[in-house]
Amino acid sequence: MKKLINAVENVVVEQLQGMALAHPELKIHINPHYIVRADAPVAGKVALISGGGSGHEPMHGGFVGMGMLTGACPGEIFTSPTPDQMVECAQAAHSDAGVLFLVKNYTGDIFNFETAVELVHAEGILVQTILIDDDVAVKDSTYTAGRRGVGATVVVEKIVGAAAEAGYDLDQCAALARKVSQAGRSMGIALTSCTVPAAGKPTFSLADNEIEIGIGIHGEPGQKRLPLVSADEITTMLVDAILTDGPYTRTVREWDRNRGEWVDQVLTDASFQRGDQVIAFVNSMGGTPLSELYTIYRKLVQLCDAQGMTIVRNLIGPYVTSLEMQGCSLTLVKADAEMLKFWDAPV
Amino acid sequence: MKKLINAVENVVVEQLQGMALAHPELKIHINPHYIVRADAPVAGKVALISGGGSGHEPMHGGFVGMGMLTGACPGEIFTSPTPDQMVECAQAAHSDAGVLFLVKNYTGDIFNFETAVELVHAEGILVQTILIDDDVAVKDSTYTAGRRGVGATVVVEKIVGAAAEAGYDLDQCAALARKVSQAGRSMGIALTSCTVPAAGKPTFSLADNEIEIGIGIHGEPGQKRLPLVSADEITTMLVDAILTDGPYTRTVREWDRNRGEWVDQVLTDASFQRGDQVIAFVNSMGGTPLSELYTIYRKLVQLCDAQGMTIVRNLIGPYVTSLEMQGCSLTLVKADAEMLKFWDAPV
Repeated sequence: MKKLINAVENVVVEQLQGMALAHPELKIHINPHYIVRADAPVAGKVALISGGGSGHEPMHGGFVGMGMLTGACPGEIFTSPTPDQMVECAQAAHSDAGVLFLVKNYTGDIFNFETAVELVHAEGILVQTILIDDDVAVKDSTYTAGRRGVGATVVVEKIVGAAAEAGYDLDQCAALARKVSQAGRSMGIALTSCTVPAAGKPTFSLADNEIEIGIGIHGEPGQKRLPLVSADEITTMLVDAILTDGPYTRTVREWDRNRGEWVDQVLTDASFQRGDQVIAFVNSMGGTPLSELYTIYRKLVQLCDAQGMTIVRNLIGPYVTSLEMQGCSLTLVKADAEMLKFWDAPV
Repeated sequence: MKKLINAVENVVVEQLQGMALAHPELKIHINPHYIVRADAPVAGKVALISGGGSGHEPMHGGFVGMGMLTGACPGEIFTSPTPDQMVECAQAAHSDAGVLFLVKNYTGDIFNFETAVELVHAEGILVQTILIDDDVAVKDSTYTAGRRGVGATVVVEKIVGAAAEAGYDLDQCAALARKVSQAGRSMGIALTSCTVPAAGKPTFSLADNEIEIGIGIHGEPGQKRLPLVSADEITTMLVDAILTDGPYTRTVREWDRNRGEWVDQVLTDASFQRGDQVIAFVNSMGGTPLSELYTIYRKLVQLCDAQGMTIVRNLIGPYVTSLEMQGCSLTLVKADAEMLKFWDAPV
């Protein structure tokens, strides 16, 4: 294992210490780990909080700041944060306008956020959760029941962060987050594995000519392995998977803050259609350079054009990474005027 | 070789096509390759142009825009751009205020920029060049006579770009660029090699437990190979090399636009001293994740503190990359009030 680290057990804490030194505009709490805007709580503003395992930087800690997240809870590498992190983060971040937790669909994250919600509610803080589950690659996986939460998370955090900044209340933020999450679909591919420091060896192995389609952001298994093909063929596979994905129906458990209990809700996401305007996000898994992402984007534009869809905004770069993994993911989000207004807001 | 590419000979052109589709605020010319701001020429503003081999993205093309570069000339991967690219880029970018070429110190770049300067001058366009040579690792290398131009390039482009935007004339931009370049020193380290697509195999090889200190941005040899040590020890080696570097004197060839000829000029860069205020730049060579850069930054702050130096601004991320190479470089630039004002300007 070759990494720029010191003792394996200190990887996350030293990274957070470096981040604290570099970014005085953030307040970084070490025990337990959480990050909030230094000016939090902001009176009258909904506190938008996300969290998840470390190793996906800049997600989520790098998205804390004016116009995006109020707070983030980084777990150990590829490990869910714990309820005490979420509760303390909510206490530090919330004003009178309540807390919205944005939860990626992983079993550990769900479990811990649910515990946190009940604790935060018991303290009399208004709290709401929204689930993000945009990965069309797998229905269930090592880490998930249902679809995993991947690239759409960045889009939700950007858009809802701007809306919270603009004065949306908790119900409005939650409704917008649900709308963006339901409008987004993603699919990823890996060229190489990555090595979790505590494990000391690659999470999985791929042959020199092999790629894995439908990879998760923790190196969990994808749909299938194939011999390496061209960037255009890979882009076509990813886009086909996203565009041919039919309506998706599942039961989502959401917190009803008035009744103080969990409520099951059936949600159906519509498929993409001709005439859709979309936000396109081409994401590096960490080790894939920007130049290759632009090559992917070139083909993506051609494929959307051919389907009568228009990319109206784009984001290209390493935002949801898996340590040093080489590969990429594509996310398309069907956008309306409300979403584009907040996408374009300063951050 | 595992990359998200199509035919090897189309790597750069397809990347530029993708970039053009993603960034309507840029004008990307394909034959020959150059990138300028879509609103260029901007009347009354010095045109700031850089260039170099591709494979270092986002440098330089990603730095074209309001407040930074006016134009950039990307060569093939790790290959100098040609004089016709530079001349056509200058023609597209220049207004009445002249052109400043920012040249990294590589033999090929120097040779081609010198030819371009004479051609541009022959067209009656005011032109000036500034050399960037900040890498303390090697005096001469495969690609260079003297020190290589590496991380300080980003700092020069940011600061002088803001100054040009603010109305500095050609002489003022050149003087500021020379000052920033002379105030900067860098040193890099590689954990892995990278693969140039046209070569199809890694530029060099390192054993599983080996690192190379003093690496260049093209995978050219560094100072020495060592067994892998901790991030803190690596940071200490890099910082020691930068801080103990004595005054550096060399002859730089600059264009005298009034006389229409080349003039040799002897320049001496001062060493760092206690009390210096510095801009610190921790750069990923591409494949090293952000989390590891923060671990490096944490130690860098401790080491600067111990030397009585203060980091007043920082930049942390992949800005001067070598394709998918894992490793990092450190750049310190002694900053004064003029430099900080332009560092802080919007971009």
